[in-house]
Amino acid sequence: MSDRWPDNRVTALFGIEHPVVQGGMIYQSGAKLAAAVSNAGGLGLLGAGSMRPDLLREQLVKCRGLTHKPFGLNLPLFFKHAREAMEVALEEGVRIFFTSAGSPKKAIGPLKEAGCTVVHVVASPVLAKKCEDAGCDAVVCEGFEAGGHNGREELTTMVLTPQCVAAVDIPVLAAGGIATGAQLAATLALGADGAQIGSRFAITAESSGHERWKQAVVDAGPADTQLVLKSQQPVRLLKNDFRDQVTNAEARGAGREELAALLGTGRARRGMLEGDVEGGELEIGQVAGLMDDVPTVAEVFTRLLTGYDEACRRLGAGE
Amino acid sequence: MSDRWPDNRVTALFGIEHPVVQGGMIYQSGAKLAAAVSNAGGLGLLGAGSMRPDLLREQLVKCRGLTHKPFGLNLPLFFKHAREAMEVALEEGVRIFFTSAGSPKKAIGPLKEAGCTVVHVVASPVLAKKCEDAGCDAVVCEGFEAGGHNGREELTTMVLTPQCVAAVDIPVLAAGGIATGAQLAATLALGADGAQIGSRFAITAESSGHERWKQAVVDAGPADTQLVLKSQQPVRLLKNDFRDQVTNAEARGAGREELAALLGTGRARRGMLEGDVEGGELEIGQVAGLMDDVPTVAEVFTRLLTGYDEACRRLGAGE
Repeated sequence: MSDRWPDNRVTALFGIEHPVVQGGMIYQSGAKLAAAVSNAGGLGLLGAGSMRPDLLREQLVKCRGLTHKPFGLNLPLFFKHAREAMEVALEEGVRIFFTSAGSPKKAIGPLKEAGCTVVHVVASPVLAKKCEDAGCDAVVCEGFEAGGHNGREELTTMVLTPQCVAAVDIPVLAAGGIATGAQLAATLALGADGAQIGSRFAITAESSGHERWKQAVVDAGPADTQLVLKSQQPVRLLKNDFRDQVTNAEARGAGREELAALLGTGRARRGMLEGDVEGGELEIGQVAGLMDDVPTVAEVFTRLLTGYDEACRRLGAGE
Repeated sequence: MSDRWPDNRVTALFGIEHPVVQGGMIYQSGAKLAAAVSNAGGLGLLGAGSMRPDLLREQLVKCRGLTHKPFGLNLPLFFKHAREAMEVALEEGVRIFFTSAGSPKKAIGPLKEAGCTVVHVVASPVLAKKCEDAGCDAVVCEGFEAGGHNGREELTTMVLTPQCVAAVDIPVLAAGGIATGAQLAATLALGADGAQIGSRFAITAESSGHERWKQAVVDAGPADTQLVLKSQQPVRLLKNDFRDQVTNAEARGAGREELAALLGTGRARRGMLEGDVEGGELEIGQVAGLMDDVPTVAEVFTRLLTGYDEACRRLGAGE
């Protein structure tokens, strides 16, 4: 562990060097990305939400071959293969689980019995407290600016983070709007113990996303994402033809079934894995407008730490 | 000026001690509040947007009697008395103007000719750059979490601030989601030169808002505000009967005229000045959920500085 973060509860919890967790995003977070993040001193997560159990097993074995450092698994609890994925991961020795999209109450029992560290993703301080009461080891609080699926509360990282820090005693990782070292410093200033970073790691050389998808994000302007389906299942997307279809359907009052059909998982695969950047579903955060290249994971960490130190120096003038 | 901020461009620009500007909010920001903020070392602003020219003159004279420190005026450019308010303020010696809601291009000429410092409020880096090109001395970038009128871009303070800092060379004040010293530190970590704080100063002893309105904010829970009228003129409100009327009207597709009638200025006066906390329009930011008392302005500054120092120490562990 680094002497940059001597008392940090996130580095201590996971046995990592820097308090940075990579979000386990569907279609982007395979063995290559997770291992690269763990090798760079963060915590890499495989994204189980887009893998059948056999592919997940293959990726877990591969990841163990690529790094000797800790890594974990992101598991969306509504995922149809969630139970099988959990079993496969436990068999393959995974002991760090980040669960999302749903209540962690049911899932946490078997995971804690197996000796796992369990972290749940929340969008409100009320749910953060429920996670603590259920036995979670930490929470990720994800703000309105985050990419992909999002809370209905619309609380931003700037407000949600101190709310969650006040609500629980377990460590809080902030997520949403964090792509630079300045933003990492801001979240720690807000009282978070670390950050979960998604979008920035999606747009790296090691992400398994398609090159055309990565380029679409590089080309995006400052306000080129939108949170759609706010009344049903909010999700933040890059603006493209597919986003237009969704907003048009919403505007004319399309029912839950029609919207669900439009948002079938095939669309996300088409967009982010197969590179259909107009017809596919492109999940990315507001930081899309702050990213203008596709660096390696190692380079992202160099920038994060440099930017963090610069931010500390800006504030340090006041000490 | 304080040695806490030796090179700060906001304290230098306004000749103030701390890089904190009080938002010039309607029905809250009279002479008493603005003078208290200026006396505490920040920059107080009178809110011209809810004053007839004669009342504005009275309040400006009163404010000059209450403080010998610099203070300024917030002027919404769409306000029906905007031109008269500007003339009155210039006659009364005001030389610091914060303009909002519209393009500063037309207003800036006469103000700069009169030797004024002019700052415009923006919600995107594109408009920030236009303000710089038009001759503004600084910009306030106001994120999605802010109370009252808001941008359509929905960019949060965490993302908007670094975007604006990258877009312009003039000082940037962050606004939206800033009520505590930790949040002030976060905005400076993001590269802002200072903060404009609205909601926290609205809920102080010196604010001219009604006691019932202040208590409604104190009682508010973590997710009790909502940005409504997103497609027309977005405004963030505390949830109450009036908010329900607006969202119901929106949901059934009410036209622009009906919504405008519902949102007539009488409603804001009724809610925030007269204390009708169910029938009135209550403009407050997401930080409503972080405020649990009605302190004096001096106490707010004590907390801001203490919290700022604590945040610096949290980050300073990494130096």
